[in-house]
Amino acid sequence: MTDNSTIKASGRVTIPTDLDVVPETLEIMKRWGADAIRDCDGTDFPAELKAVDAKVYSTYYTTRKDNAWAKANPDEIQQMYIMTGFHTAEGDSLSIHLMDHLYPDMLKVNDQDDIRRWWEVVDRTTGQVVPAERWHYDAEKGDVVISAVAYHDYTVSFLAYIMWDPVHMYNAVTNGWQGVEHQITFDVRQPKTHKFTMERLRKFIADHPYVDVIRYTTFFHQFTLIFDELAREKYVDWYGYSASVSPYILEQFEKEVGYPFRPEYIIDQGYMNNTYRIPSREFRDFQAFQRREVAKLAKEMVDITHECGKEAMMFLGDHWIGTEPFMEEFPTIGLDAVVGSVGNGATLRLISDIPGVKYTEGRFLPYFFPDTFHEGGDPVKEAKVNWVTARRAILRKPIDRIGYGGYLKLALEFPEFVEYVESVCDEFRTLYENIKGTTPYCVRRVAVLNCWGKMRAWGNHMVHHALYYKQNYSYAGIIEALSGAPFDVRFISFEDIRENPELLKEFDVVLNVGDAYTAYSGGENWMDEAVLTAVKRYVHEGGGFIGVGEPAAVQYEGRFFQLSDVLGVEEERGFTLNVDKYNWEEHSHFITADAGDKIDFGEGKKNIYALPDTTILRQIDKEVQLAVHDCGKGRGVYISGLPYSFENSRLLYRAILWASHDEENLHRWFSENYNVEVHAYVRNGKYCVVNNTYEPQSTTVYRGDGSSFPLQLDANEIRWFSI
Amino acid sequence: MTDNSTIKASGRVTIPTDLDVVPETLEIMKRWGADAIRDCDGTDFPAELKAVDAKVYSTYYTTRKDNAWAKANPDEIQQMYIMTGFHTAEGDSLSIHLMDHLYPDMLKVNDQDDIRRWWEVVDRTTGQVVPAERWHYDAEKGDVVISAVAYHDYTVSFLAYIMWDPVHMYNAVTNGWQGVEHQITFDVRQPKTHKFTMERLRKFIADHPYVDVIRYTTFFHQFTLIFDELAREKYVDWYGYSASVSPYILEQFEKEVGYPFRPEYIIDQGYMNNTYRIPSREFRDFQAFQRREVAKLAKEMVDITHECGKEAMMFLGDHWIGTEPFMEEFPTIGLDAVVGSVGNGATLRLISDIPGVKYTEGRFLPYFFPDTFHEGGDPVKEAKVNWVTARRAILRKPIDRIGYGGYLKLALEFPEFVEYVESVCDEFRTLYENIKGTTPYCVRRVAVLNCWGKMRAWGNHMVHHALYYKQNYSYAGIIEALSGAPFDVRFISFEDIRENPELLKEFDVVLNVGDAYTAYSGGENWMDEAVLTAVKRYVHEGGGFIGVGEPAAVQYEGRFFQLSDVLGVEEERGFTLNVDKYNWEEHSHFITADAGDKIDFGEGKKNIYALPDTTILRQIDKEVQLAVHDCGKGRGVYISGLPYSFENSRLLYRAILWASHDEENLHRWFSENYNVEVHAYVRNGKYCVVNNTYEPQSTTVYRGDGSSFPLQLDANEIRWFSI
Repeated sequence: MTDNSTIKASGRVTIPTDLDVVPETLEIMKRWGADAIRDCDGTDFPAELKAVDAKVYSTYYTTRKDNAWAKANPDEIQQMYIMTGFHTAEGDSLSIHLMDHLYPDMLKVNDQDDIRRWWEVVDRTTGQVVPAERWHYDAEKGDVVISAVAYHDYTVSFLAYIMWDPVHMYNAVTNGWQGVEHQITFDVRQPKTHKFTMERLRKFIADHPYVDVIRYTTFFHQFTLIFDELAREKYVDWYGYSASVSPYILEQFEKEVGYPFRPEYIIDQGYMNNTYRIPSREFRDFQAFQRREVAKLAKEMVDITHECGKEAMMFLGDHWIGTEPFMEEFPTIGLDAVVGSVGNGATLRLISDIPGVKYTEGRFLPYFFPDTFHEGGDPVKEAKVNWVTARRAILRKPIDRIGYGGYLKLALEFPEFVEYVESVCDEFRTLYENIKGTTPYCVRRVAVLNCWGKMRAWGNHMVHHALYYKQNYSYAGIIEALSGAPFDVRFISFEDIRENPELLKEFDVVLNVGDAYTAYSGGENWMDEAVLTAVKRYVHEGGGFIGVGEPAAVQYEGRFFQLSDVLGVEEERGFTLNVDKYNWEEHSHFITADAGDKIDFGEGKKNIYALPDTTILRQIDKEVQLAVHDCGKGRGVYISGLPYSFENSRLLYRAILWASHDEENLHRWFSENYNVEVHAYVRNGKYCVVNNTYEPQSTTVYRGDGSSFPLQLDANEIRWFSI
Repeated sequence: MTDNSTIKASGRVTIPTDLDVVPETLEIMKRWGADAIRDCDGTDFPAELKAVDAKVYSTYYTTRKDNAWAKANPDEIQQMYIMTGFHTAEGDSLSIHLMDHLYPDMLKVNDQDDIRRWWEVVDRTTGQVVPAERWHYDAEKGDVVISAVAYHDYTVSFLAYIMWDPVHMYNAVTNGWQGVEHQITFDVRQPKTHKFTMERLRKFIADHPYVDVIRYTTFFHQFTLIFDELAREKYVDWYGYSASVSPYILEQFEKEVGYPFRPEYIIDQGYMNNTYRIPSREFRDFQAFQRREVAKLAKEMVDITHECGKEAMMFLGDHWIGTEPFMEEFPTIGLDAVVGSVGNGATLRLISDIPGVKYTEGRFLPYFFPDTFHEGGDPVKEAKVNWVTARRAILRKPIDRIGYGGYLKLALEFPEFVEYVESVCDEFRTLYENIKGTTPYCVRRVAVLNCWGKMRAWGNHMVHHALYYKQNYSYAGIIEALSGAPFDVRFISFEDIRENPELLKEFDVVLNVGDAYTAYSGGENWMDEAVLTAVKRYVHEGGGFIGVGEPAAVQYEGRFFQLSDVLGVEEERGFTLNVDKYNWEEHSHFITADAGDKIDFGEGKKNIYALPDTTILRQIDKEVQLAVHDCGKGRGVYISGLPYSFENSRLLYRAILWASHDEENLHRWFSENYNVEVHAYVRNGKYCVVNNTYEPQSTTVYRGDGSSFPLQLDANEIRWFSI
């Protein structure tokens, strides 16, 4: 029985406003059914709208937008660790200019604090620290001068003040803001600014009585974002901690952990502990310390917010370091809500899965900025892709609200866009009504295993927020596919297995996805007897294991893939060229039953070969891309890479079913056509069939009891049924 | 002045014979100008030819062809170390069948010697040896039974007797010999067989008075060659030492080195110390010990040979382990000659560069075996490719003789082949006459740097003799190009640099070629301060460095390519995704001036990016394949891979000139058309121009003074000129 009544009621939608679009704001509110209005970086809230019948959000910048304070307290300006490039000494003296290739207005070398303690000159040829008596800083030239060993390479790790907030700079550069004063980032963690900040917050709330929701953007520490001398992005790490440091903070850290601090704990050979690095003990300690301290201080602000009768909402991004929302500290902050940008299904789940808040909100793309909203731009297309991509994930775990940001004025010039968003708002409210409060039907329990576990749940292989990188889209595709798939997905770490080897019993299938030696595949963790034994026991006793890319890869004891006996494949790194390889024949299989002749493995992997008893599903030019292997009572699947697509999503779905011996349940809440998906909400007595494409589709839909019926769907259509 | 008179005189050519081709042998002798006749494995020397006017070679099998002796002395049958596959224990007991996937007639488990001493059961999960009291051998079943830890993986390293000589087996299987008795390999190193062998040699010489040359095939230890249960090749390593072991030998070794022997020194996690493995100290010790012992014993046989008035010739291959011809021990053997199979230019140089023998001989392809000489086969084509490929190398360093092997009867059925070889013999004699005794003009001094140095000179990236492997042809191409290029080429090791950091001054350009962590790129050697500093000094002071594939690659102190500052490129392994990369533009350059739009980089390399100040010559889909970079006074060149072709040979030539600042001397002894090469023999007052292709070519030829003239050449033609 079809139940496709669209909810026309308003609500669950937030829109931006500005001084110059007051009547238009009211018009859009009505058309989109918006019940909340917000300002943005670079916009102001119009006085005329203060009494509007909607919640008013106000962006609140905890660490910037008060240069007077920053300038009066330069010692409490935020800092970041920077490593210079590598420099080779051609003789016994070497000068390194610290600010080379850095945007001069953004950073200022901190030579106020004791540089012998907080800076580090490292001989990268030997890996040894150069003693402080063998170098000095020439402040006038901005150079560190080193007594060097000829033809050794050196780097300098130093602290710099953040004189232009990186997000403010990004917004200013992207929008071409002229003559805007550079907002300095001050450090709420330090005593004077701490005290000032709490007063400033109370004053802000008092000064803005019409505001209902304080939208913190965000708390205290910006993810790592550095610009080069041409104001181009030079380094970005959405999860980066290197701009969350200062001698004040680091002294506390040192006291707490009980071992001496080294700049190298943050610098990490210049890799800055990015998300691909297997985290060191010291970096884990630092993260834990920061999370706790940030949570404590954020709670102070949230408490004030509540005391003043307002709601506290956090933006998931920008100065969000230390507030990883799936960690224990997060719920202690007491936030009412989290809002985040939705780049795709994975980033949607990054928001909607957050526990311990009253509601979540997704800010959809495109942002109303001139980079999209210009003559010749196609914002409708961007909006469609964004919505349809995210919808899969919403259907698994909905956010509570949707919203948009930027300059409303720009959007108004695109009436088709306004119309499309109107339909999205209606569609969202309908689906929310149909699925709220339930857990959708889950076919299998799936774990994604890596070094980060829940800390970076749904954020695996994310360098900057949902952006494409040639080296990781073939892995991120797996996470994206999972974000909208009918599985109970959890992210677990090697540490979790060490703490509880029985943990794996909670899953039907475990995935390990990534390149060798990265935090996502796990590197040296696969030399740990505890991990290896737990995983092998799990598989031999019947578990499924899917490895993507270079799973479980670390060169150790005669193997590169430590689970080559599970996956049935190994990588040729030269060491087994001597071994004759006769197994190259391809086989048809349950997993590839819906795949075409050509499967898109993305970047794939070179030099993978199958062991003799492995069943190859695809090889290209004698490089295995997809293979399956029985191991004890369990099953292994190897995939070289799997960019996100509807077809690949289906392939992964089948792989998970096969790996967990569940092939016979394929035709439960299932669409024959892989462009269409079925989601069931058994407790609510509803299910939906959703066309993920921009063309009409026909399919056969299977219900939970295996019965089926044919169905035609319009482009993008979602059709609701009662069970 | 052209001087193209062909030497029609006879000599310098060896042909095979057999009982059934006596008159034909005499006919071919005359046509090809042969002055030596040989037998082969599977042929006999006809009585009618004993008095022929030619040298007679007789193949002599030092370690086989006397099963009566072998069977009477089973304790002195040769042995090899074998590692079983990896086996996972599902409980606390695990049985591993030793002979799984091995050809049953070839090997027999040696449980006669103390298996607790000579075998090793290894827990590959922990890397620990399982104490002998925790396992036993069930001889009846052929299983090792282990008290295991559940879900750990185990391997067994054991000794096996070689009951069918691998080369005899290969010849028998390839030629379909029926009912042939399997020749057992006996061990001349052991006392009874040692004594017997010297007597047997004297008897053989006495019994064959018409033989002039004892062609040892070879001395004592076969390179590693193992067949599987279906008699297919299972493992092959032309440089492998694992079949050169026995308790008798290993006890001597242990005594000499002064530390306890472990099977793992040979087993090497199952990788068997193959040529891609960075050699351990213990394996180097073992090789040195074997070389000395083999040389000592070989000398004994050569001395007897000389005492009996015969010449001693060694075949470079088969049982040649321990006789690496570029090592110090080799000339002490006192051999008169070496003969080897010519697969290409590199294998030609492997023979012709051997010091300390009176003459060298190349056995050309195709071997007169039915795999080529059958109806529909094209032996002329194979012969042409083989000759033209090898000729480049002969023109740099000639062998003294050429020859053929196999069944002459088969070749006679291909009159075009007989005719082609006749022309080759004439051409060879002419060029030999023109270049003998001189060193050809060398444009630059080039070093190839890896872990093996001179030990594996010209044999770099060789798994089996000159065979193609997908993972190494892009590197072997560099060695092949060098084999016929006008450079003074030497092969040096990291050890050589550690012993003498000034060594690099002897070269204009240093090459490092191979995949990360292999013996050819060097792996952990690039973490050695001594090596890094010597190489950086060399480049900064003006040297050229060419890296191919993953040169100087080892993850260490913030870099993967330890010479990224020299080469200007780095590999993206996930750790620098955060770093924005703006340098992708391609540039035209001296190095690519003769290259077409599409350069064949073979397998190339993925994920290579350029540093900001690097000049990219080619990138494909944002993966750099060819780039150049200034570094101090020196220059670096990065190439992702370079399969052998005339075009790529030219590219490498130009890269070497550019890296050593020698661009202005390009037009010296040079052909504008890269299909044609020029070689000058200044002392002999000769130079030649040679067309390497199978089509006519026209070109402009540049003499040593830069003057030039146009030239047309027939297919394959070599034209001689006086200077």
